[in-house]
Amino acid sequence: MNTGELVELGQQLRVDSVRAAAAAGSGHPTSSMSAADLTAVLFARHFRYDFDRPDHPGNDRFVLSKGHASPLMYATYKAAGAIDDEELLTFRKDGSRLEGHPTPRRLPWVETATGSLGQGLPVGVGIALAGKRLESADYRVWVLCGDSELAEGSVWEAAEHAAYEHLDNLTAIVDVNRLGQRGPTRHGHDLDAHARRFQAFGWHTVEVDGHDVDAVDRAYGEALSTKGQPTAILARTLKGKGVEAVQDREGLHGKPLPEAEDAIAELGGPRDLRIRVHAPSGSGASAAGAPPAGSTAPLELPRWDKGEEVATRNAFGEALAALGTARGDVVALDGEVGDSTRAEFFAKEHPERYFECYIAEQQMVAAAVGMAARGWVPYASTFAAFLTRAHDFVRMASISGSRLNLVGSHAGVAIGQDGPSQMGLEDLAMMRAVHGSTVLYPCDANQTARLVAGMAGLDGIRYLRTSRGESPVIYGPDEEFPVGGSKVLRSSDRDRLTLVAAGVTVPEALAAADALAQEGIAARVIDLYSVKPVDRETLRTAAEETGCLVTVEDHRPEGGLGDAVLDAFADGRPVPRLVRLAVRNMPGSASPDEQLRAAGIDAESIAAAGRLLVEEAIVP
Amino acid sequence: MNTGELVELGQQLRVDSVRAAAAAGSGHPTSSMSAADLTAVLFARHFRYDFDRPDHPGNDRFVLSKGHASPLMYATYKAAGAIDDEELLTFRKDGSRLEGHPTPRRLPWVETATGSLGQGLPVGVGIALAGKRLESADYRVWVLCGDSELAEGSVWEAAEHAAYEHLDNLTAIVDVNRLGQRGPTRHGHDLDAHARRFQAFGWHTVEVDGHDVDAVDRAYGEALSTKGQPTAILARTLKGKGVEAVQDREGLHGKPLPEAEDAIAELGGPRDLRIRVHAPSGSGASAAGAPPAGSTAPLELPRWDKGEEVATRNAFGEALAALGTARGDVVALDGEVGDSTRAEFFAKEHPERYFECYIAEQQMVAAAVGMAARGWVPYASTFAAFLTRAHDFVRMASISGSRLNLVGSHAGVAIGQDGPSQMGLEDLAMMRAVHGSTVLYPCDANQTARLVAGMAGLDGIRYLRTSRGESPVIYGPDEEFPVGGSKVLRSSDRDRLTLVAAGVTVPEALAAADALAQEGIAARVIDLYSVKPVDRETLRTAAEETGCLVTVEDHRPEGGLGDAVLDAFADGRPVPRLVRLAVRNMPGSASPDEQLRAAGIDAESIAAAGRLLVEEAIVP
Repeated sequence: MNTGELVELGQQLRVDSVRAAAAAGSGHPTSSMSAADLTAVLFARHFRYDFDRPDHPGNDRFVLSKGHASPLMYATYKAAGAIDDEELLTFRKDGSRLEGHPTPRRLPWVETATGSLGQGLPVGVGIALAGKRLESADYRVWVLCGDSELAEGSVWEAAEHAAYEHLDNLTAIVDVNRLGQRGPTRHGHDLDAHARRFQAFGWHTVEVDGHDVDAVDRAYGEALSTKGQPTAILARTLKGKGVEAVQDREGLHGKPLPEAEDAIAELGGPRDLRIRVHAPSGSGASAAGAPPAGSTAPLELPRWDKGEEVATRNAFGEALAALGTARGDVVALDGEVGDSTRAEFFAKEHPERYFECYIAEQQMVAAAVGMAARGWVPYASTFAAFLTRAHDFVRMASISGSRLNLVGSHAGVAIGQDGPSQMGLEDLAMMRAVHGSTVLYPCDANQTARLVAGMAGLDGIRYLRTSRGESPVIYGPDEEFPVGGSKVLRSSDRDRLTLVAAGVTVPEALAAADALAQEGIAARVIDLYSVKPVDRETLRTAAEETGCLVTVEDHRPEGGLGDAVLDAFADGRPVPRLVRLAVRNMPGSASPDEQLRAAGIDAESIAAAGRLLVEEAIVP
Repeated sequence: MNTGELVELGQQLRVDSVRAAAAAGSGHPTSSMSAADLTAVLFARHFRYDFDRPDHPGNDRFVLSKGHASPLMYATYKAAGAIDDEELLTFRKDGSRLEGHPTPRRLPWVETATGSLGQGLPVGVGIALAGKRLESADYRVWVLCGDSELAEGSVWEAAEHAAYEHLDNLTAIVDVNRLGQRGPTRHGHDLDAHARRFQAFGWHTVEVDGHDVDAVDRAYGEALSTKGQPTAILARTLKGKGVEAVQDREGLHGKPLPEAEDAIAELGGPRDLRIRVHAPSGSGASAAGAPPAGSTAPLELPRWDKGEEVATRNAFGEALAALGTARGDVVALDGEVGDSTRAEFFAKEHPERYFECYIAEQQMVAAAVGMAARGWVPYASTFAAFLTRAHDFVRMASISGSRLNLVGSHAGVAIGQDGPSQMGLEDLAMMRAVHGSTVLYPCDANQTARLVAGMAGLDGIRYLRTSRGESPVIYGPDEEFPVGGSKVLRSSDRDRLTLVAAGVTVPEALAAADALAQEGIAARVIDLYSVKPVDRETLRTAAEETGCLVTVEDHRPEGGLGDAVLDAFADGRPVPRLVRLAVRNMPGSASPDEQLRAAGIDAESIAAAGRLLVEEAIVP
C-alpha cells in the first residue's frame, strides 16, 4: 500500500470501530481511532502473519495491551480478511468471539487476554524472550500500549526485563493520545517525558506523529533495524481522531460516538480496503524453533525413603530439575529467591531454560504467560506470600486459558522466625478462586515430586504450595497421587471423626490421631493434598462413616482447606458437623513449633477439637 | 557527633546487628552492615524525632523499606536510647517486639510493616503527601531502600507519584550493596544506572560512597536543600561491610555471621555510643497540621425513596462526598476511574482532599496506608477486579494494623458487555482472607450510604463492594445496617428453605421467593450485606427453622458468600443442607441479564435450586 492507501486504511479502521461500537451500544471507539494509523501501517507494511495458521512458529505476535481498543483490533482483522463484516457487528454480543476485551479463548489470533492495563507489554516480553532465548526464532513481538497504562509499575518491570535481555525483537508502540478514562494523563502529549523513562531503562526510542503514516512507517523500520535493545515508539495521537465532535475531547472514553452516522460520513464513509498481510518467514514446516513436544527422555524423579526428613521445597527443586531433563519444553522462572524456593536446582542443570526475573513477581508471571502462549511449560516460583503481588496477572492468565505452573514456597506460620510478611497465609484462597485452577499442597517429598511432574499436563492455572522446614517422608517413592485424589492415612470401622489435613498439618493430624487413639477415640486421617479439585467421594464417605470432621490448615480460615472440604457437601446432601482449625491470630516471630501452637493448628489443638466434636459439644 | 564518632557509631550498629542475629540464630546482619553508616549519619545528624512521643505531629518519619535489615533498625533504636541491650537480644524470639521484619503493631516507632520488598517507598510517598498536601507540616520522610527492590514496579509507581506531587520532603536512601538474596542485582554497583532511572522520573539524585560518613552527611544536606522534587541518594556500599569473611560475598544473605565473636572483634568490639536525636520542630502541642479529630459537621447522608433505581456505586460516591463534608479527616484516592467508581463526586466537593493516583493500584493503596498511618481516614477506590493488583499491599496493610477503606466497583458478571477482565469475581475471596478485615456488599443505595459512613469507624481493612448497574431501592433512608448484621427480607413460620443473597443477587432472590411462593413453597430471604463478619445468629436461626439454605453470589464459588455462610456452622453444631450458586463459567460479553442467567445466579436458577433442595434431591 502507498501513502494514500494507508491513510484510507486508517480511516476505514476508524469507521469500522465506530460501526462496531454503535452496533454494540458500548465499547471504546475513541481509543481505537487514535491508534488506527498505527495498526494500519503495522499490518499493511511490517507485520508477518498467517491468519490461517495462528500456530505458525514464524508468525509475528501482536499484543493489544490497551485491550479496550478491541474495535480497532477487530476492524484490522476484518481488513486482513480474517473476519467478515457481519461478524464485526456482533461485537460485544452474547456468544460473539468479539468480546469487549480480546481473549485467546475465543479468538485464535489473540496472544493473551488484555483489559487489565499494564499487562500486555509484560506478556509481550515473555513471548519475545521465548523467541530469542528458547527458540532462536526471528519473529517479532509488537505491543500496542496506551499512554495511561504507563503509570502501572508492571510496565517498568517489563521495560527493565526487556532491556536487560536485549530483546531487539520487541517493539512497544505507545499510543500517546494524552487522555485517560477520566481525563488527561500525567504527561499529556509530552512524548519526551515517556521517552526519557524508556531510555533510562535501556530502550531505544522513536518519537513520531502517530497520524503521519510515512513517519510511522519509518519508525517501524527504525525499530526493525535497532539491534541489542528493544524499541519504544512514542506516537503523538488524538483520541477520537477524525471526528470533530469527539477528537481530543474529555469525557468520551468508553462510549459509542454520539452521532455514529454523522461520524462515519465525516470519516469519509465505509471502505473495503484489504490488507495483504506479509507471510511469516520460513515455511514453518520444520518448526525447528518451537518447543519440543512432550517427553524427550524418560522421567526419573528423585526418590526418598520413608522416614527421611526433607523439605517439600527441596523436593520441588529436585523434581523440577528431573522434569527438565525428561522434557525439553519445561522452563523455570524465579523471583530472585531461587535459593529459597529451590528453583536453583533446575537452574544448575538447565541454565539455558532458567529465567532469573529478579524481585518483580508481576513480570515473572507475565513472562511465564508469554512463554506458555508459545507452547512452553513454565514453572514460576517465589514465596507463596509474594505471589499475591501477581494476583491480577494470575487472574488474567486464567481468562487467557493459560497453562501455567505456579509454585509458592514458605507457606504458613510454619516458616517460624521471619514473621508474617514472609508467610503465605492467603495463597490457597487466592489460587482456589481462580477459574479452572488446580491447587496442590503436598506434605512429603515423594508426594511433591509426583505432583510437580503431574501438574505439567493439566489445563489452566496450577498451583503448588511448598513448605520451608523439613518434614518426614511418609509415602514410598512409587506411590501415586492423582490430581483430585487424597490419601486416607488412618482408617477403621470404629472411626468416630475424621481429621482432614494437608502439608505441614498432616504430621500434626497423625500425632493427634495417635493421642486420641490412646483415649479410645478412633480418628480417620485424610491427607487432602489436592485442595482443588477436591476428592469429594472420600470426604463424603468419611462423613457418612464417621459423622464429623476436623479440618486443619496452616492458612487463614477463609478460602482454604476448610472451605475446600465443604465443597463436597454443597449439592444439597447432608453436611457433617465440623470444626475448622486455621490461623486466626496475627503471628509475630517465633519458632515453627511455637507458631503452630499459637495458631492452634498443632497436634494438641487438633486432638482437643476432636475430643469436643465427638462429644457433640460446641468448639469455641 | 564528629566524623570519628560517626564512624564509631556505624561500627557499633554493625556490632549490634551481628549480636542480635547471633542471639536469634537467624536474621539479616550482612544487609544491616551495608547500611549502618547511612542510618548512623541520618539519626545522629538529620533525623528529628521524639521517641517518647511517636505521635508527635512534627516528627520526621523513617521507613525501613528493606525490612529484613531490622537488626540495623533495632541497633539504631538502642543507640537512640529507645530500647536497651537486653531487649535487643530478644530479636526474633517469641513475644519480642523486635520481629524479623518490623511492624507498627508491636513497635510504636515503626510507620508501616515492611518485609515485602518495594512497599516502603510507596507508603513513604503517602506519608510525605499527607505532610505536604494535607497537613502543611514540615516533617520529612526518609526511606531506606535496598537496591534489589528497585526491580519492583511498585517502586516506579511511587517514583512517578512523588515527583508528580513535588514531594521535596521525601528522601529515598538506596543502599546499593550490589547483592540480592541469591546473587548480584541487575545493575551491581552501577550507581548511574539507578540514578538515570530516578532522574527520568523527575527526581533529584545524589551518588555517594555509603561508607564515607562526611559524604553521606553532605548528601543528606543536599536532599534537605532540594526544592520542588524528591531526592534519591544512591549510596555505594558493601554487604557485610567491615568483616572480611562476609564482606561483598555471595551466599551470605539472611544468615547470622559464621563466627560472630571473631566478627565483633574485627569490628572493634561492642561500644555504647548514644545518639542524641534532634527533637522535632514545633512543640506539637497545637498539632495544627494533624487531621481534625472526628466529626466537624453533622453527617447528612444522601437519601433515596424506596422504588428508585440507583446504582450502589453512585450511592457510594454521594455518601463519601457527604462524609467528607461531615469529617475533615476523610480523604479519597482513586486509580483514574473516579468517573466509574463515582469517587469523582467526592473530588468535586473536596478537591483538596482528593488524590488522583492514575492507573497505579499498588501506589494508590500504599498512599492510603501512608495517610492512614498519619491519622487520616482514606477511602481508596477502583474496579474490584483491579484491587487484585494491590493484593500484596492489602496483605501488608493488615500486618501493619492499618485502618483502611477500600472500595471496589463493577463487581461480578452483572457489569455485562465489558467481559471478564473488568469483572470483580475474586474480590470477596481476596478480602475475606485478609486478617481482621471487614467485607461489605450492599444491595441498595440507602444501605450503601450507611455502610460507607459506618466503615470509617472500624478497625483494620474494610472493603465495600459496589455494583455498576442500577438496582431498586428496597430500604428506607432511616434503616440502620450494623456491621455484622443482616436483613431478613421474607420470613414466615412456614418457611421451608432460606435464600441467602447480597448485592445484585438480592433482587433475584426476592423474585425467586415470589416464584416459589406461587408454588406453595415459602422461602425466607436474607440480605447478607455484611459478608465478614457474618451474622451467625440469623443464619443459625434460619437453618434451624427452615432446614436448608441456598446461597447465591455474583462471585466465584470459592471464598465468597457461600463460604462466609458456612462460617456460622464451623463450631461443631449441626450444619444445614445447602446449595451454593455462584459464577462457575468463564463469562464473555453479554448483557447483564444474560450474564446472570448464564452464570446460574438469576431468579429462575435460584428457584430451581430451591425446589430441588426442599425435595431433598441432589442439586447438580
